[in-house]
Amino acid sequence: MQSIDYIRVVLVEPTHPGNIGATARAMANFGFHSLHLVRPHRFPDEIAVARAAGADHILHSAVVHDSLDEALRGCRTVVGSTARDREIQWPVQSPETCMSALGDGSVGPVALVFGRESSGLTNDELERCQILVRIPVNPEFSSLNLGSAVTVLLYELRKQMSDVDVESSSSEPLAVAEDVRRLLEHFDCVLRQIEFSDGRSGKLNRKLTRLFARTRLYAQEVNMLRGILKAVENRCRRE
Amino acid sequence: MQSIDYIRVVLVEPTHPGNIGATARAMANFGFHSLHLVRPHRFPDEIAVARAAGADHILHSAVVHDSLDEALRGCRTVVGSTARDREIQWPVQSPETCMSALGDGSVGPVALVFGRESSGLTNDELERCQILVRIPVNPEFSSLNLGSAVTVLLYELRKQMSDVDVESSSSEPLAVAEDVRRLLEHFDCVLRQIEFSDGRSGKLNRKLTRLFARTRLYAQEVNMLRGILKAVENRCRRE
Repeated sequence: MQSIDYIRVVLVEPTHPGNIGATARAMANFGFHSLHLVRPHRFPDEIAVARAAGADHILHSAVVHDSLDEALRGCRTVVGSTARDREIQWPVQSPETCMSALGDGSVGPVALVFGRESSGLTNDELERCQILVRIPVNPEFSSLNLGSAVTVLLYELRKQMSDVDVESSSSEPLAVAEDVRRLLEHFDCVLRQIEFSDGRSGKLNRKLTRLFARTRLYAQEVNMLRGILKAVENRCRRE
Repeated sequence: MQSIDYIRVVLVEPTHPGNIGATARAMANFGFHSLHLVRPHRFPDEIAVARAAGADHILHSAVVHDSLDEALRGCRTVVGSTARDREIQWPVQSPETCMSALGDGSVGPVALVFGRESSGLTNDELERCQILVRIPVNPEFSSLNLGSAVTVLLYELRKQMSDVDVESSSSEPLAVAEDVRRLLEHFDCVLRQIEFSDGRSGKLNRKLTRLFARTRLYAQEVNMLRGILKAVENRCRRE
């Protein structure tokens, strides 16, 4: 996974060092490394190191600033994370919409700005953001942990940036259609031998066809099932 | 935001009570409330309460189990979260693909199963899952915090659900987990009777488990397959 240089994560006045550590860990998880802190209450701190769980390089290279403006220097795009509806009318985007616009390096450097655990970003700080993003949460329990908010946005950003298909990269070959058909014929034959089916109603065969069509059998599974059917036949012949 | 009843979050042997609290908080954020714990190291615990940040109702109603099977009782869909590539070939889905399939209440009850902080789920536990999901992370720093993994999946699930009618009409009921387990035990028993298996190698059972987990059997298909197995047994007894 390529490390992304043009995104910086900015935490404004984080109170709990654990959240700084959780942020560093999430950044490492999703391939980001540029962390900026505005007036952190406690930093550096051993709790941050513990929660970073090995993402020490991000904590070590974190830049501490006296003001948000300083932390935003050089940024072309500033995104603010907000949990609340503000009186100020402002376009607020979903994480998906917002992050899909950041996948192109030409919008960078990009700052993702997160506010205080207790009170978020001030109106003054929000006004420095070009885009506001809100993670949709239960209005009756809307207080998202700071580290969790960072995690969700970086997850969504990484997802939007990457076309990588995580879908099964199974190297195992699927069965070809004719082998599945032969399996079903074999089933039909055995079900008559064990007198489970009289072969007249097609209903049972349709059910088995549906079952195995849905499964998308692998070639070796067809072989295994045919082996089982043969063992049943051998047993019947012994009588 | 409507509270979702048919999704349960299952944590297997969580070591750190902070992660139990973080899980409860994320559940409240995204409108879920059914938490199940399998052999938690420390629970209840004040650290969990602190990290839950007010989601006490979820901690209070959490159900503690002695085994994963007990925690899965009654579930129609079992999703396992995994960080690693396994030797065993198994279809692994992206959070988006996986969660988009869970937005319809007819697949429930659904268990989202998360393993230990240090080592995830064992192969034996993974085999109880019909679907595996992996959050795409930086392979060089792939250890995602347990609470963060829960947060990301619940965020994605809630996002996928917001477009779907949760009351969506159920077609046919899926089999519950314990009925699928009993089917596999029945298979094991019959395969010995027909001398296809000597019962010593678990390999065959694992293959069948994988096959039927992937298929997502309907209740009536389980009945049909057990009927076939009984017919084979009857035939064997005639000798």
